[in-house]
Amino acid sequence: MKTRAAIAWEPNRPLEIEEIDLEGPKQGEVLIRIVTTSLCHTDMFTLSGRDPEGIFPCVLGHEGVGIVEEVGKGVTSVAPGDHVIPLYTPEDPNCPYIQSGKTNLCQTIRKTQGQGLMPDGTSRFSYKGKMIHHYMGTSTFSEYTVLPEIAVARISREAPLAKACVMGCAVPTGIGAVRNTAKVKPGDTVAVFGLGAVGMAVIQGAKLQGASRIIGIDVNPAKFALAESLGATECVNPDDHPEPLHEVIIDMTNGGVDFSFEAVGNVRLMRAALECCHKGWGESIIIGVAGAGEEIATRPFQLVTGRVWRGSAFGGVLGRSELPGMVDEWLSGRFDVDPYITHNMAHDQINTAFDLLRRGESIRSVIHFQTQDTMVGDLAGEIVGETRKAPVLA
Amino acid sequence: MKTRAAIAWEPNRPLEIEEIDLEGPKQGEVLIRIVTTSLCHTDMFTLSGRDPEGIFPCVLGHEGVGIVEEVGKGVTSVAPGDHVIPLYTPEDPNCPYIQSGKTNLCQTIRKTQGQGLMPDGTSRFSYKGKMIHHYMGTSTFSEYTVLPEIAVARISREAPLAKACVMGCAVPTGIGAVRNTAKVKPGDTVAVFGLGAVGMAVIQGAKLQGASRIIGIDVNPAKFALAESLGATECVNPDDHPEPLHEVIIDMTNGGVDFSFEAVGNVRLMRAALECCHKGWGESIIIGVAGAGEEIATRPFQLVTGRVWRGSAFGGVLGRSELPGMVDEWLSGRFDVDPYITHNMAHDQINTAFDLLRRGESIRSVIHFQTQDTMVGDLAGEIVGETRKAPVLA
Repeated sequence: MKTRAAIAWEPNRPLEIEEIDLEGPKQGEVLIRIVTTSLCHTDMFTLSGRDPEGIFPCVLGHEGVGIVEEVGKGVTSVAPGDHVIPLYTPEDPNCPYIQSGKTNLCQTIRKTQGQGLMPDGTSRFSYKGKMIHHYMGTSTFSEYTVLPEIAVARISREAPLAKACVMGCAVPTGIGAVRNTAKVKPGDTVAVFGLGAVGMAVIQGAKLQGASRIIGIDVNPAKFALAESLGATECVNPDDHPEPLHEVIIDMTNGGVDFSFEAVGNVRLMRAALECCHKGWGESIIIGVAGAGEEIATRPFQLVTGRVWRGSAFGGVLGRSELPGMVDEWLSGRFDVDPYITHNMAHDQINTAFDLLRRGESIRSVIHFQTQDTMVGDLAGEIVGETRKAPVLA
Repeated sequence: MKTRAAIAWEPNRPLEIEEIDLEGPKQGEVLIRIVTTSLCHTDMFTLSGRDPEGIFPCVLGHEGVGIVEEVGKGVTSVAPGDHVIPLYTPEDPNCPYIQSGKTNLCQTIRKTQGQGLMPDGTSRFSYKGKMIHHYMGTSTFSEYTVLPEIAVARISREAPLAKACVMGCAVPTGIGAVRNTAKVKPGDTVAVFGLGAVGMAVIQGAKLQGASRIIGIDVNPAKFALAESLGATECVNPDDHPEPLHEVIIDMTNGGVDFSFEAVGNVRLMRAALECCHKGWGESIIIGVAGAGEEIATRPFQLVTGRVWRGSAFGGVLGRSELPGMVDEWLSGRFDVDPYITHNMAHDQINTAFDLLRRGESIRSVIHFQTQDTMVGDLAGEIVGETRKAPVLA
């Protein structure tokens, strides 16, 4: 079949929308029509060429939501018509990692996923006979995409597809890091380095957990109002302080925070995030993805005196067994995803979405493949309000 | 009063035994007669001049046991005749860190202790009118020493004073790191980097917790027999393997260990210890003390993929409320401390003890201040057996 997809032909070149070939689902695979997808810094990171695992040409995109169109042989857990979120962190109940109960890092298809291929070692995408790689096992910048059954999470049909894409990465990554990885408790103090979508979700998660102080940190003060509306009790611009950033936070918090989160991917900030933790018990969680070969460093004394250094991938969330419940939490009003969505646009405006993200002017741009599906009925005047300064589509 | 003490006049100079002046205990302080003390690498580290916090001249020693001789005003929790272990990590119930229930790192006297002084900012030691500094708040290389009440743990009078000194640091540090910091569970796999006394205690702790595999690692294969007698299931000499050490351990363990412990103080080994942990959940605990200014480093991906980097000081043990119970465990036969004690000697042989430790020929040399107290009745033919190759005192 044919699908319209945004192709990344090589690093640092704008995506090109093409009609490409897509093979249907093989055994254990699912064909999905993506209804909306949003852009994450990780897509931009790979497109920049700094991602050592980036393989071109490919179809980027890993934060999306769609509808099952067709299932391959042996698929039993989803059926055509189901609303699903593609999972770049799949969940195979037969994976020993999943069976351990200690991690969400399913290994079943990790190797081929890292190679930009389906589990059988081939790609479903091609253009004029030339193979186009998959990306993160999801490739949501294509209107139709094929995924293994273990990499789709069936969610409530009540979830508005115009917005549910942000549940594919940013929101569970941030809220999950707080709840699953850090296990923040009521009264804890929290510092959040980086106020992109994931940092904003960390703030939401910390508020849900009852944190007593939530300090947002970003060099772009334009993010502060949104951070505070989501639960940040105060915000810090490192450029306003001559002292090292970790000392600023330590001074503000009488010795350091209980938990810090790095949601940027900057190894110097990862060090500051660790070192602003409270002696004796403070824990720092790395969420951001650093550039190829970059290393974190600190004096071991920081750890010997009780600080803990952790990381979190997809918020420690089990995609198939836990993400649907998080969607239900959203639908029940426990938290809101509207604030993430600063822009809505059509598929052919995707390079504009990259520009907005690069300039720090968006939190999430949602790409709508069929604007008549979602933009008109679902969105008009709802997300794209005047206070959000988002460009309203025609 | 006068006391015989081994003085460290300056870095890298043999200790000199002198009769020096000791002021009696002030308010809230306790005078202790040290019966035995053992040597730890930390004493050697400070004497080497690499310890940025070393202050000279001083009386080294932090692993000892003694008897309360006299108490200052206001002291209520111990009385003359009590058997006590000096605590370089004190426990003040009024310290907010202790009250947090999250750490054993009592801060009450940390500042003055780091300055080699008693809490009132002065030293009790002097020689011909010149101040001699305290060390780690304990200075157990002196026959008599003065400590704050919060820095002594009263232990059972059943504990043989000829051996109980090793309960002052090595044993609780190792066993505590396993139980309190790592929380090793039955069936877990463990790698121990460095087979000194602390590494040996980690092995004992891991065995107590029911670890399924305990891998001892040291460049000195002379340590392997003892390690295996204490519970190591296998031992690795890094010099036998051309591959990077973390890869050797990963290969041996089908993906890495559940827990690793660094008990050397070498930042490169700390990295290997982290990176040999199992993806998804492995935790590495730094126990060793690195040289001044040295830093640990790794790629943040190691943490994002689920490894955890921690540290442990005094095994996370609360000195006054938990150490006496650990002594009781030893007395009840839950574990044995005899294997640590490879040598026994008199106070004036203390430089020989440093030489043995430096050459890797001892695990613990126990220094006996009054040989008639302990060496004859308690020790003869008991610890110093022929298989231990320890020099028997006259």
